[in-house]
Amino acid sequence: MAQDLVIGADVGGTWVKYVVVDTADQRVLQGEIATDTGDVGITIGLLAREVLGALGTDRSRVQAVGLACAGIVSPDSGRLGRSPNLPGWEQQDLSAPLRDAFGLRNVVVANDVNAALYGEYLHGAGRGCLHLVMIALGTGVGGGVLIDGRLLLGVHNSAGEIGHMILDLDGPTCTCGNHGCLEAYAGSAALLRRARELAAAESAVPLGSGGAISDSFGDFVNRLGTQLTTNELYQMAEAGDLTAVALFRTAGHRLGQATASLINLLNPDRVIVGGGLALAGDLILEPCREVVRDGVLAEQARNTPVVSAALGPHAAALGAAALARETEF
Amino acid sequence: MAQDLVIGADVGGTWVKYVVVDTADQRVLQGEIATDTGDVGITIGLLAREVLGALGTDRSRVQAVGLACAGIVSPDSGRLGRSPNLPGWEQQDLSAPLRDAFGLRNVVVANDVNAALYGEYLHGAGRGCLHLVMIALGTGVGGGVLIDGRLLLGVHNSAGEIGHMILDLDGPTCTCGNHGCLEAYAGSAALLRRARELAAAESAVPLGSGGAISDSFGDFVNRLGTQLTTNELYQMAEAGDLTAVALFRTAGHRLGQATASLINLLNPDRVIVGGGLALAGDLILEPCREVVRDGVLAEQARNTPVVSAALGPHAAALGAAALARETEF
Repeated sequence: MAQDLVIGADVGGTWVKYVVVDTADQRVLQGEIATDTGDVGITIGLLAREVLGALGTDRSRVQAVGLACAGIVSPDSGRLGRSPNLPGWEQQDLSAPLRDAFGLRNVVVANDVNAALYGEYLHGAGRGCLHLVMIALGTGVGGGVLIDGRLLLGVHNSAGEIGHMILDLDGPTCTCGNHGCLEAYAGSAALLRRARELAAAESAVPLGSGGAISDSFGDFVNRLGTQLTTNELYQMAEAGDLTAVALFRTAGHRLGQATASLINLLNPDRVIVGGGLALAGDLILEPCREVVRDGVLAEQARNTPVVSAALGPHAAALGAAALARETEF
Repeated sequence: MAQDLVIGADVGGTWVKYVVVDTADQRVLQGEIATDTGDVGITIGLLAREVLGALGTDRSRVQAVGLACAGIVSPDSGRLGRSPNLPGWEQQDLSAPLRDAFGLRNVVVANDVNAALYGEYLHGAGRGCLHLVMIALGTGVGGGVLIDGRLLLGVHNSAGEIGHMILDLDGPTCTCGNHGCLEAYAGSAALLRRARELAAAESAVPLGSGGAISDSFGDFVNRLGTQLTTNELYQMAEAGDLTAVALFRTAGHRLGQATASLINLLNPDRVIVGGGLALAGDLILEPCREVVRDGVLAEQARNTPVVSAALGPHAAALGAAALARETEF
């Protein structure tokens, strides 16, 4: 039987999303299983049983498996390095468990944003381009760089840490311990923290003082407390709440500061913005584009498109599958 | 006769530096002529007469010419784009005048910092590395990026504009019209402007007020006025003047902010700092390295060497010669 299928999976802190694709990278199967953040072997074993079980006799058609993972991934050794959301996976070899569980020699591991970027490059918002930058606005902020159609890994496989570009040496504290990283402005955790700070400040303002914060914002955010999500902030902004709009606008300006620097540095065809916050669309991308138009030096590069990712939540799994297919084993 | 020689030249706002090298990139000749910033043809004609004249009958040994130039250079078309220091050269074709003047078909044009980086990669501070970043601290701040041994040009040949990475959206005005670019902190023009501002502020402080500015600094700077150069600031700092030391330290911190972001983004083997201000050595590089150690995310990348350029003022001419030799015509 022809070995015409490839499996791609994307390990997040909560779910492992997977796809099975044919030679045209069309999905023949997709789904997800829960991640055991403490144990690589258990998770990958479960993944293999689920996917191979669903494939049934077609399992013999699988030629390779690609696994994407948050964190610093070494494609050569198959090891995962730093990965704050997968504590039990750090410093673990991922290749051997993949080979064992799937009964295949051909396995590839990659960073999740790099995999998503590769998926967008082949089939999504970066199709037809050779030089791309991806910024993934999740809880934190990840990134990836593609040059001449190849993912940039760097000497320690730690290239693409766009979330830790330093936008203000005296800025807010980042999860990494430093100050003023992009992640401290444009990650959803940072945005939610800032929303709660604004709401707390509003509740400290006497009624009728006419502050800049709209009336409904503080009540709403204070009531939800830690249950607040960026989706609710987005809905508030869409409904015209000025404070919510301003929150996305500030994050967008900081995204623009980083993006302008990236364009000055790399002069890519496009910059792709993905991750949950990218669903806010122009609320965050228009302020970004404003800073880009002002902040990019080369005239021809000032209109570098800054676009939303197009492949949705399975982008990294699709990209991992494509990387596995294209690898020469 | 063997065609074993290559000519490399580097067009600056004042001088054109040139070298003639053999197959081992050893210099057999070097020198400089004055730049006519208003006329490409006159300058290149003069250069050809000088170099070919000095070579005498050896001129038939020349196989190619490489020309490096400040500004956005398009190697494919041979044209120069934006180039503030060479007003009469902007939007001009450089290849045809080179071919005419030297009587050679094989000519290459490149950005000057890219050429210098390529020289450092082959024969200087970047030898043995594959991924390099160069930051050139001149009047302004230029940059170059080398990935897998190849210069990064980007889609409009405008990659590597490290001087216009935005370090503070509300920072000092840059020559480009924006705010808070690296160039507005770590270019020598910015450093000298800041020195004069400090000196002016000091002279406004009543005697004996015990300000942080050392006694000699303001007098010295005010006396020199527009004659002040970074070399004098450097000598003051070396002699222990605290204000001069602090000036280099602040520039070094900003250089470090950009360098940490660059390492997070590109994960290079090394970062090479060149240009006139790099002669200040550890006065500017140590504060830079401090910020890098704190600001780089990946543990293995925190000690990425930040080193001075090694080839001296002919680096770009040497690099241009190497690029010309390696180009397949």
